[in-house]
Amino acid sequence: MTDLKQALSNTAEKIEAVLDDILSPKGAPEHRIYSAMRYTTLGGGKRLRPFLVAQSASLFDVAEMNALRTGAALELIHCYSLVHDDLPAMDDDDLRRGKPTVHMAYDEATAILVGDALLTLAFEVAAQPETHDDAEIRIELVDMLARASGARGMVGGQMIDLEAEKKDLDLEEITLLQQLKTGALIGYGCEAGAILGNASAEQRQALISYASDLGLAFQIADDLLDVEGSVEETGKAVGKDEDAGKETFVSLLGINGARDEAKRIADRAVSQLSIFDAKADLLRATAEFVVVRRN
Amino acid sequence: MTDLKQALSNTAEKIEAVLDDILSPKGAPEHRIYSAMRYTTLGGGKRLRPFLVAQSASLFDVAEMNALRTGAALELIHCYSLVHDDLPAMDDDDLRRGKPTVHMAYDEATAILVGDALLTLAFEVAAQPETHDDAEIRIELVDMLARASGARGMVGGQMIDLEAEKKDLDLEEITLLQQLKTGALIGYGCEAGAILGNASAEQRQALISYASDLGLAFQIADDLLDVEGSVEETGKAVGKDEDAGKETFVSLLGINGARDEAKRIADRAVSQLSIFDAKADLLRATAEFVVVRRN
Repeated sequence: MTDLKQALSNTAEKIEAVLDDILSPKGAPEHRIYSAMRYTTLGGGKRLRPFLVAQSASLFDVAEMNALRTGAALELIHCYSLVHDDLPAMDDDDLRRGKPTVHMAYDEATAILVGDALLTLAFEVAAQPETHDDAEIRIELVDMLARASGARGMVGGQMIDLEAEKKDLDLEEITLLQQLKTGALIGYGCEAGAILGNASAEQRQALISYASDLGLAFQIADDLLDVEGSVEETGKAVGKDEDAGKETFVSLLGINGARDEAKRIADRAVSQLSIFDAKADLLRATAEFVVVRRN
Repeated sequence: MTDLKQALSNTAEKIEAVLDDILSPKGAPEHRIYSAMRYTTLGGGKRLRPFLVAQSASLFDVAEMNALRTGAALELIHCYSLVHDDLPAMDDDDLRRGKPTVHMAYDEATAILVGDALLTLAFEVAAQPETHDDAEIRIELVDMLARASGARGMVGGQMIDLEAEKKDLDLEEITLLQQLKTGALIGYGCEAGAILGNASAEQRQALISYASDLGLAFQIADDLLDVEGSVEETGKAVGKDEDAGKETFVSLLGINGARDEAKRIADRAVSQLSIFDAKADLLRATAEFVVVRRN
């Protein structure tokens, strides 16, 4: 676990530098929008998704900067989704990563535009030659990132989540919701490494299966944190799901049941990586980590 | 002008079919989000931006479906921007193209997600092989579309526009604002034809210069319509700029001054196309049309 924490923090530091560079409006007028984009993107987060890109890419000896830029594009999508998710018309959250959300620190209109700008920038970053010198690979990154993020991926999951406030979902429906809402981006993180590394179909499928389990384990753990965590630990409001009357893995399985299920699926995630050698050890450790993390 | 109206309506019909196909969630669950995406995207609009792609592409004998899909991607960006622009925290508009805006017909959260989904889908469409068989060309389409749409393009212009409510802009500032807010997508429309057609640097620059003038003439005409048009003609609320105390080309130049300026810039747009033969006649007619249109 010490190795994993060190590796996570190493990647987070490098991603921070790449994002800082991407969000510097060289030659552009110093808009309020850049200030707000930097406010919400820089200086926080575990950068789990870029870490997954970096680790899956490392299985295939991909150049580090290619993986970092691909991870940065993915992180921009994740950041935009948080900004829009926090809006008053959505989850109406005042705190994110321990500081005021964008619509609180700036205003609602700025938060809408900041989300739009980060989302758009993700595709610009993925499309630029610095991300990979092969246009075929870059266009596949763009295509898969769009699928993972859009109406059939993350945004589709957010839509189901909104509708879920009006009706009770069963376990199968919650699983689909979460596979879209959080699983799709985690899946892209692992698949992006395979795309960058020209992985075989078998290797790519193994990473996709791993990511699918990882995403689910991550979400169950997140539901547990919402019940058991504190504001100090998580840096955001807790107990929101219960307050909103939303079904979660915890409300459906109970605390102990959810904890067992998270463990079972994390173990399955590890087993999906059996075709890889020790290079995949940090991915294996990640699956074990997500179910015991405290934030 | 009859030829232009016929050509516009031909392209609009073809774009409608392409968008209808793109927005059919084959195999996906029938989410509320697809219904709302279709509601706001289909069945309306002049489809001016796709028309510009089609016309600039036709200068270089680009296959029609390549131009249509590129135009459809651009139209998705335009549609998303309208949905977010209409939100209560932004322009707070109830009517668009003569029918209730998305947040009125559905709700605010759905409108936020619909905008996000359309924006994301635009890049998926541009990235798919059906848009062009050369990955180098597709990735350039993605890159330029992202630049035109993001913080240094359209969204940057929207941000300046929001800030403009707090201070009076002069003519130079209004021009910059509009070059970003509406000009960038119009510019992309014309440049996309050049990208699809492997145009020479000179041809590409001519189209960029034309589009820059066209966008400006279009915006001045829009400001005139806001003062002189009726709700019936424009399908949206009028007099909004004056109500919001916003400076416009009309408030800075007067009605007659703005009309003269629109005419002068439209003429300049036509002159930018001097290197092209009669194939560019519909682009020339477009410049003349945007300053006399009634909606």
